[in-house]
Amino acid sequence: MHEARTARPVVRGTMGLPVVGMVGGGQLSRMTHQASIALGLSLRVLADATHDSAALVANGVTVGDHTSLEDLRAFAQGCEVVTFDHEHVPGGLLEALEDDGLTIHPGSAALRHAQDKVVMRERLAALGVPVPPFTPVATVRDIEGFAQHIGWPLVLKAATGGYDGHGVWVVHSAGEAAEVVAGGIRLVAEQLMPLRRELAAVVARSPYGQGAAWPVVETVQSGGICVEVVAPAPGLSEELALEAQGLALRLADELAVVGILAVELFETADGLVVNELAMRPHNSAHWTIEGSRTSQFEQHLRAVLDYPLGATTATAPWVVMANVLGGDGEAPDLDRRLHLLYGRDPALKVHLYGKTIRPGRKIGHVTALGSDLEDVRDRARAGAAYLREGVWPT
Amino acid sequence: MHEARTARPVVRGTMGLPVVGMVGGGQLSRMTHQASIALGLSLRVLADATHDSAALVANGVTVGDHTSLEDLRAFAQGCEVVTFDHEHVPGGLLEALEDDGLTIHPGSAALRHAQDKVVMRERLAALGVPVPPFTPVATVRDIEGFAQHIGWPLVLKAATGGYDGHGVWVVHSAGEAAEVVAGGIRLVAEQLMPLRRELAAVVARSPYGQGAAWPVVETVQSGGICVEVVAPAPGLSEELALEAQGLALRLADELAVVGILAVELFETADGLVVNELAMRPHNSAHWTIEGSRTSQFEQHLRAVLDYPLGATTATAPWVVMANVLGGDGEAPDLDRRLHLLYGRDPALKVHLYGKTIRPGRKIGHVTALGSDLEDVRDRARAGAAYLREGVWPT
Repeated sequence: MHEARTARPVVRGTMGLPVVGMVGGGQLSRMTHQASIALGLSLRVLADATHDSAALVANGVTVGDHTSLEDLRAFAQGCEVVTFDHEHVPGGLLEALEDDGLTIHPGSAALRHAQDKVVMRERLAALGVPVPPFTPVATVRDIEGFAQHIGWPLVLKAATGGYDGHGVWVVHSAGEAAEVVAGGIRLVAEQLMPLRRELAAVVARSPYGQGAAWPVVETVQSGGICVEVVAPAPGLSEELALEAQGLALRLADELAVVGILAVELFETADGLVVNELAMRPHNSAHWTIEGSRTSQFEQHLRAVLDYPLGATTATAPWVVMANVLGGDGEAPDLDRRLHLLYGRDPALKVHLYGKTIRPGRKIGHVTALGSDLEDVRDRARAGAAYLREGVWPT
Repeated sequence: MHEARTARPVVRGTMGLPVVGMVGGGQLSRMTHQASIALGLSLRVLADATHDSAALVANGVTVGDHTSLEDLRAFAQGCEVVTFDHEHVPGGLLEALEDDGLTIHPGSAALRHAQDKVVMRERLAALGVPVPPFTPVATVRDIEGFAQHIGWPLVLKAATGGYDGHGVWVVHSAGEAAEVVAGGIRLVAEQLMPLRRELAAVVARSPYGQGAAWPVVETVQSGGICVEVVAPAPGLSEELALEAQGLALRLADELAVVGILAVELFETADGLVVNELAMRPHNSAHWTIEGSRTSQFEQHLRAVLDYPLGATTATAPWVVMANVLGGDGEAPDLDRRLHLLYGRDPALKVHLYGKTIRPGRKIGHVTALGSDLEDVRDRARAGAAYLREGVWPT
């Protein structure tokens, strides 16, 4: 599917290069800003507050409300292209901006598949893409009916707004389901898939229709939060890797995604099953900053500007990224921990997000690269654990 | 030479991490800011103007005069450590800031060797480091006297303030020398060295005394401006490479440099001769952004904060950086050229500085990496030439 080159409004910054705006001031925006500096761009950020992760380091920061059409309009009119570091801008507002003639990537029609799990599941099923057995549910009776087919336990998910394990419940009985239903949010019920592991296929797509895929990775979750990503996924057959990449590229094309598309997958005994979609730079591809010739943040910018995409060649046989989560207890002396970490592992790459440290919050990540998977994984795990806990794992 | 850990005033930013200020808003500051984002820091920049290269992309920008003690004082008091993207802060002002108890890296005592070529030449000669035959000169008669020993042509250099070929004259006669003398600036005369090529040895040193060296590179100049850097220097013997690295590490230690020290060298039939010193991130190490596990910009920050230094391992067998200079004629449609460049070479890494394009001005650089030197060099040259001229070299 090829569209004509987008005729976007011309809003130019320094060196006559386009101005890109990103809605959301989190770490994805922070790292996109970092990538934009090399490309000669000046990323503009619409942040919730001046202490947002990206707002601390970018020059063109607007503080505003991403659920206010007025704020979005004012922000977008200063940009040639607007993109997102989250999925929380209501679809109706995105459509209104598009009706204004503003260029939004990914567009509202694509983005709804990352905003609403019911829309996503139904579309993927219609495309013949493997997804877990699912059904939208409104009542406990709906859930019990679904359980008669697929059994307990099953998974309930908030149709919209979930992240990092929030909005996902594994329920073992009608009683447990009733507690979730009592929350009064739209839900979808899914089979709890028996899985070997989780994978992610991350690709980019430009308006012109060019696609580019990174190697498929293994993602390791703990408590619903991604804690580790291994690139490439160890022991994955070439057949499955190509299938996952092909699936992600096909979905990017079918859904007309512009920018990054991350497809979270379950590897099961029967093959690959799509879990979630995200249409923005994604935690499962932070490893690309050092581990790929083109990082996902640079690639996202190239895609939304309809530049030809960058090479996705890996720069090392193995790359492992481990998230740094806020530990329990008092805020640590992070500066001291960095001293000791840098001394112990001079080749580890540290990324910190400038965020207030709270238990379980993603405050950074570390990346290790090398030719020995065990060594690389041990180093990434040790670095992340030390920054979190202040003790080296044994 | 080891000093005690610096007891710097505690000025902390986000996550309890130190605040680093950089005097100067050029591309070195811009790329240092980019590196500071990953380290969780918020680089503060003292810029000449809001449109300076770094001021366009950094959040904490102060516009002020780097020759005003008042401006420097106000800036430095908001920082735990102050460092520099140029050598133009007068030494007396640096000493005044140090007398205030502020932490300046590199310090005034080190920096004068990068500020004054007479001081540098005399110190290096006293240390037994090979330098070209030289003498400070004030009159044409002084120059004629020097020429009687080493012959014409010879080189005259401005003792202070030169850069990119400015402040360097090759003179063939007393008449030509008289024109330079008429400029009324302090001069040093040097022998025009018969050289095979130019090299650079770039190292970092921390206050604690830790040193780290990158591979020695070949630098290619045109019209006094560095146009290309090849890492590592092709065909350089291990003996000479170790000598150059050892010399740079020794100088960093003897001069008590903190941060990056770039030693520009002549390779002559009789061995290595030191040409220039710079005590800040340097053009000859831009290749480290992608080509080394730790970039010079990250390393400079680690050094001035007295963090243990990062690994300087190369990430590819060959890395070539080519500077992008402003072409003659009208300002180009750089966006269009980027489209075509990205399409032709998806693995080339582009860095643009956000600067107004003027003929011969450094407006960016490109970096190519790979295992075939000729291919890597051709790609870097073609990319830089295309961005400059809008035509592919044949």
